[in-house]
Amino acid sequence: MEMEMETKSQEEIEGKYAADISSIRAAYARISPFIHKTPVLTSESLNIMAGRNLFFKCECFQKGGAFKFRGACNAMLSLDEEQAAKGVLTHSSGNHAAALALAAKLRGVKAYIVIPKNAPKCKVENVRRYGGQIIWSEANLLSREETAAKVLQETGAVFLHPYNDGRIISGQGTISLEFLEQAPQIDTIVVPISGGGLISGIALAAKSINPSIRILGAEPKGANDAALSKSAGKIIKLHETSTIADGLRAFLGDLTWPVVRDLVDDIIVVEDKEIIAAMRLCYEVLKVAVEPSGAIGLAAVLSDTFRKNPTWNECRNVGIVVSGGNLDLGLLWNSMDN
Amino acid sequence: MEMEMETKSQEEIEGKYAADISSIRAAYARISPFIHKTPVLTSESLNIMAGRNLFFKCECFQKGGAFKFRGACNAMLSLDEEQAAKGVLTHSSGNHAAALALAAKLRGVKAYIVIPKNAPKCKVENVRRYGGQIIWSEANLLSREETAAKVLQETGAVFLHPYNDGRIISGQGTISLEFLEQAPQIDTIVVPISGGGLISGIALAAKSINPSIRILGAEPKGANDAALSKSAGKIIKLHETSTIADGLRAFLGDLTWPVVRDLVDDIIVVEDKEIIAAMRLCYEVLKVAVEPSGAIGLAAVLSDTFRKNPTWNECRNVGIVVSGGNLDLGLLWNSMDN
Repeated sequence: MEMEMETKSQEEIEGKYAADISSIRAAYARISPFIHKTPVLTSESLNIMAGRNLFFKCECFQKGGAFKFRGACNAMLSLDEEQAAKGVLTHSSGNHAAALALAAKLRGVKAYIVIPKNAPKCKVENVRRYGGQIIWSEANLLSREETAAKVLQETGAVFLHPYNDGRIISGQGTISLEFLEQAPQIDTIVVPISGGGLISGIALAAKSINPSIRILGAEPKGANDAALSKSAGKIIKLHETSTIADGLRAFLGDLTWPVVRDLVDDIIVVEDKEIIAAMRLCYEVLKVAVEPSGAIGLAAVLSDTFRKNPTWNECRNVGIVVSGGNLDLGLLWNSMDN
Repeated sequence: MEMEMETKSQEEIEGKYAADISSIRAAYARISPFIHKTPVLTSESLNIMAGRNLFFKCECFQKGGAFKFRGACNAMLSLDEEQAAKGVLTHSSGNHAAALALAAKLRGVKAYIVIPKNAPKCKVENVRRYGGQIIWSEANLLSREETAAKVLQETGAVFLHPYNDGRIISGQGTISLEFLEQAPQIDTIVVPISGGGLISGIALAAKSINPSIRILGAEPKGANDAALSKSAGKIIKLHETSTIADGLRAFLGDLTWPVVRDLVDDIIVVEDKEIIAAMRLCYEVLKVAVEPSGAIGLAAVLSDTFRKNPTWNECRNVGIVVSGGNLDLGLLWNSMDN
């Protein structure tokens, strides 16, 4: 994997991509009355294991249990009255769906949510709890898109893509504003990468605030399209994905790819078993209930791929975005009820 | 259960018990460079379920995974050089043990920890990780005390009781200083009760800062000695205890009982199944990995006992102390590895 080590000046970033520091600050002004300012946790034990200082930005404590509410809330509040009146629509396997349902509820408008049949139960429950109207699709992207197109035609609702949208990217970028204020010593941020909305927003904001900060993506081996895309210099999509991290199966979009290409320094690819081991540390040491996607940043920092690459020796204060915490734990409760 | 509704003035509290607001403020000055200032989390969904606003003080994020580090750290730092040189000793089923080992490590002295054979594995692991020297005892209080007495004789170490000690009570009381600053609107604090060290410290500090604040204990039905003691007007000990909340099996001591008698407004007794249901909400909604003792405050607030008692209708902003997060989750990980 080649790395983009030269830093971009703020002028180079501004206006070139689907979001920038201005749109991200505007998003923050818009959403901050409604979101949780999530805490940053640290653990001496995990620092020792990682051989550096780790700072965990716990977006699993965000409303809806994931960072997605930031983007959904910003997009929702950006709509004019006429647009909002017809409701909003998305297709998503989980966290964006729940986030949009919640944001729509906040504004008192309808949310139509196309959900693939294989979505985790707890994420579907969240959509239901927030009053989203669920429309089922098959468990593939084509079926999701076709079903969404049909609902769009019937309702005239505004389609809000889970990540390939400047308003969504700007909303997710607000994480950097908080994170760099809460832990200004951070020299590196490790971010789960899927469709790229989260990492794009974070990179755009963080590199505007501190051009020398490193942004690393963390991606599961069974859905390593972003790593392949970086290598190939163009968007690569996979025929199929296979990973425990159900939130990291999407592919880059035309708005997120340029940011990932230019501003993400590298992608660390990890195995599912590394993700599970990191999850365990999150539960047992950090005491935070994460989903697999939420633990992948820690998995990356503890991986040999990262630790044995001398380029990253300089990463002393590493921010890790714990993206979400929506996980079916039925088995655990069943075992206790007996 | 009769309630003590009259409020005590600060003069009445000061000097009457094993700790007071002055000793608690002194403890805070001593320990604050070493402890985590734990965050306060909120959840709209849980507020709706409870019918009031809940504020979760997450001491599971404290060093060692439980509030116990506050007291242990204060006691440790209160020792003079000569005392500290011989090491410290305690008997504890878990969280106090780990906390004392960690505090001793901080000061570079030896910690002898008598642990009953039935202590949760992850709590024993914590003691080991922090370099505590483990001495096993049988799973009853008598064996714990006898074993400890033997070690005491051999080593001359300073014995630090898990809760019946003014330095420990003062350390735990520092929670109130942070909590009432982080969420000043709180009118009630619900606290797990076992030996009474935590609730004594919290009550002494909170009632000095705000004499009208209500302090409620939360206790498992299978170890309801504090509720029985309040009813009887004297310390009641049980022949045996049976509850999933392994951290809540101790009995009140002569230093904690007067505080519980005078300053704790009531004890809410809950069933184990209510504790498990509350744990599930902590993991799935709050996204916090708690142990059973840590979830009992939420269980109490959601219980019929609490909700149907008109006295507590006025509790609109309820602080809940999430005391710890050390739980063996082996089963969960085993299920994922397959």
